[in-house]
Amino acid sequence: MDKVAIFPGSFDPFTRGHEDIVRRGTAIFDHVIIAIGHNTSKRRYFKIEEMVDKINQLFVGEEQITVITYDELTAELAVKYSAAYLLRGLRNTTDFEYENSIAQVNKTLNSDLETVFLITSPEFASISSSVIREVHRYGGDVSAFLPYAI
Amino acid sequence: MDKVAIFPGSFDPFTRGHEDIVRRGTAIFDHVIIAIGHNTSKRRYFKIEEMVDKINQLFVGEEQITVITYDELTAELAVKYSAAYLLRGLRNTTDFEYENSIAQVNKTLNSDLETVFLITSPEFASISSSVIREVHRYGGDVSAFLPYAI
Amino acid sequence: MDKVAIFPGSFDPFTRGHEDIVRRGTAIFDHVIIAIGHNTSKRRYFKIEEMVDKINQLFVGEEQITVITYDELTAELAVKYSAAYLLRGLRNTTDFEYENSIAQVNKTLNSDLETVFLITSPEFASISSSVIREVHRYGGDVSAFLPYAI
Amino acid sequence: MDKVAIFPGSFDPFTRGHEDIVRRGTAIFDHVIIAIGHNTSKRRYFKIEEMVDKINQLFVGEEQITVITYDELTAELAVKYSAAYLLRGLRNTTDFEYENSIAQVNKTLNSDLETVFLITSPEFASISSSVIREVHRYGGDVSAFLPYAI
Amino acid sequence: MDKVAIFPGSFDPFTRGHEDIVRRGTAIFDHVIIAIGHNTSKRRYFKIEEMVDKINQLFVGEEQITVITYDELTAELAVKYSAAYLLRGLRNTTDFEYENSIAQVNKTLNSDLETVFLITSPEFASISSSVIREVHRYGGDVSAFLPYAI
Amino acid sequence: MDKVAIFPGSFDPFTRGHEDIVRRGTAIFDHVIIAIGHNTSKRRYFKIEEMVDKINQLFVGEEQITVITYDELTAELAVKYSAAYLLRGLRNTTDFEYENSIAQVNKTLNSDLETVFLITSPEFASISSSVIREVHRYGGDVSAFLPYAI
Repeated sequence: MDKVAIFPGSFDPFTRGHEDIVRRGTAIFDHVIIAIGHNTSKRRYFKIEEMVDKINQLFVGEEQITVITYDELTAELAVKYSAAYLLRGLRNTTDFEYENSIAQVNKTLNSDLETVFLITSPEFASISSSVIREVHRYGGDVSAFLPYAI
Repeated sequence: MDKVAIFPGSFDPFTRGHEDIVRRGTAIFDHVIIAIGHNTSKRRYFKIEEMVDKINQLFVGEEQITVITYDELTAELAVKYSAAYLLRGLRNTTDFEYENSIAQVNKTLNSDLETVFLITSPEFASISSSVIREVHRYGGDVSAFLPYAI
Repeated sequence: MDKVAIFPGSFDPFTRGHEDIVRRGTAIFDHVIIAIGHNTSKRRYFKIEEMVDKINQLFVGEEQITVITYDELTAELAVKYSAAYLLRGLRNTTDFEYENSIAQVNKTLNSDLETVFLITSPEFASISSSVIREVHRYGGDVSAFLPYAI
Repeated sequence: MDKVAIFPGSFDPFTRGHEDIVRRGTAIFDHVIIAIGHNTSKRRYFKIEEMVDKINQLFVGEEQITVITYDELTAELAVKYSAAYLLRGLRNTTDFEYENSIAQVNKTLNSDLETVFLITSPEFASISSSVIREVHRYGGDVSAFLPYAI
Repeated sequence: MDKVAIFPGSFDPFTRGHEDIVRRGTAIFDHVIIAIGHNTSKRRYFKIEEMVDKINQLFVGEEQITVITYDELTAELAVKYSAAYLLRGLRNTTDFEYENSIAQVNKTLNSDLETVFLITSPEFASISSSVIREVHRYGGDVSAFLPYAI
Repeated sequence: MDKVAIFPGSFDPFTRGHEDIVRRGTAIFDHVIIAIGHNTSKRRYFKIEEMVDKINQLFVGEEQITVITYDELTAELAVKYSAAYLLRGLRNTTDFEYENSIAQVNKTLNSDLETVFLITSPEFASISSSVIREVHRYGGDVSAFLPYAI
């Protein structure tokens, strides 16, 4: 059976660090689904449609990779897509504590769901979506942090 | 003199992890007061009255445990209840850094006030109120994380 | 050429911990510019004009120290003031992870900009502006945490 | 092609925490090789032959799992066994920092080698081989921490 | 029944940070037993008899405090002294991870044993016995770190 | 007066990460003294004389940089060389906790001594001398981690 992993996040925006995890994930799983959480109560900075387009263009022709948006529990989304794995990147110890908590909760909600972690490559580990938004808001050049033009 | 400890928090909601700390606290202190911070500027997800009810039912008949709500400095609340101790749970290093800061400030505001820490039992350490709210918002089953039905 | 360092922050409020870093910074750099970020989208608790006044009075007669407000990227502010250094304090590991991320981003935006860190003196390491605001909001005495009367 | 992962360690002794990672690893990889580092310069507490026996008995009949000993670089061992993955468990932030360093070094030595991390299940996260050795040295009962009798 | 806590450690040497925890512990427990681990396989820098003497002199006349040496599992020592509590100081996140592991193991070995943590006061949090030994070895003045002359 | 900083360490071996800190340090200080601790009680893996040679060749012609060996307290060494600063690199949170402790002790021993920290550049942050020794011991290629041939 195909090994399907979901790579969930808000991706506001999707960064070179996220790209790093997705590409490395395709060497582990048959299929990686980039799932952009569409939480109507949280305002995004970058439009979700734009992000879907940019990610689609980035991975065009790479059949192992799909992009979707979703507005439900990740643990339920996994069932819908027959995904037995969540894929997550770890950049530092702050990420670790947070991801640990989320992974245990997802396991409780769906005991068949395994969260698999890769450590973000050092050159991308300092990139955070929130810092990119802050730089972009002030008109700074964020192209070094993104794998596409914006 | 009775040893009274205050267990302060927003408890939005009160979790099995919180219950773990309260029960273990009653083996150290004569009385543990669960004090739900009622900060009018922050919107709660679970109603404070409902939370008081649930906690009261959970510990019914256990005379060492009381529930109150408060809207003042914890350091002052302690004086009012003749409590010389604050009781806090530590789940991970992120908690540690935050609690360290709060404990020193409380000591500065009230030099007689000692903050006593228990490390949350491993099976509850990944439970956070904010994650529970997120799961509940999406209609997920949070009963595994709460010591009462909701 | 004079070595100019910018000490950026929101300083809401400026604490004894901040003062500690500034004074120690003047032993390393010829000039330290305290730069209060004036982000119009984030509401402050203490007025920025009041904070400028308080800091100016605190360091009156100390020619190595200047206070400014700014509303742009720190990396660009540094160019404007011919500052080759950012000065930052580290209180704990949570600070470290955040500052690491910001420092790398600033280096990417302005490769001539070096971020220099001092570890906050232990007696000030537990002081955080957000906790001070919380205490002040409830009418608590924050004078122990501030190097000026408020 | 089969996905082969090496789970390297000194396993002095192999714990329930290690067993947790191996079993969960078999749901990701086709084959998991438990590789006991045989560093002649470091004295072991539990004999390596005994540990190989115990692990073999534990996983008897499970064809996805193999135990070996080795005395070379993990990055080279991987080549020998056509393993493209290292499997590692993360228990806490201290583990994270160490594993991050090791993973980058292994990537440098063998760019085809990907380190995949699982977070140790909470009930096993506090178990460390060094603490078990300490307890055993004093005649304490370590059976709760080991998946076999000793 | 009296609440007895054991404060275990190697105390090589006993520092002002340790004194801080002991004194604060006497406000929580009826009796605090400073238990110096006497591990024959680890060489000490400061003689254990000298340390017992120094600690005895430090707390002379304070009947809540006792000093002992021991060479067994802490969990068993607690039974012998009818101690239901272990008292431990936390200085930073590295301490936290280690103490978390030890506390869970002690709980497994003796389910009646509760480990209670105090955060070391900031002015003592940077003092570590190993650094003191290093300074003393080079003839440096360690009097600022010790609550007695040596 | 010239600003002199000491960069102390065991440098067993001196890595690209160390080189990164030294070079960036010369943009802050007039002079950086690389001080190799020569602790006779600890056995080195790489000979101290070889390391002095390698570092000298690396920085030949760069007058801001000097290499020395020493066998005394760093706080006293600083006095001897009229150095008012210690320069240290931070790679991660584990480093932070350790360096915090050392910096406070040095300040206590020599109140004029300021420890200045730079965060190691991401591409070098995973390099640790102890891992390099381990790789070298097994005949692995460590050239990617060292700024000189060995």
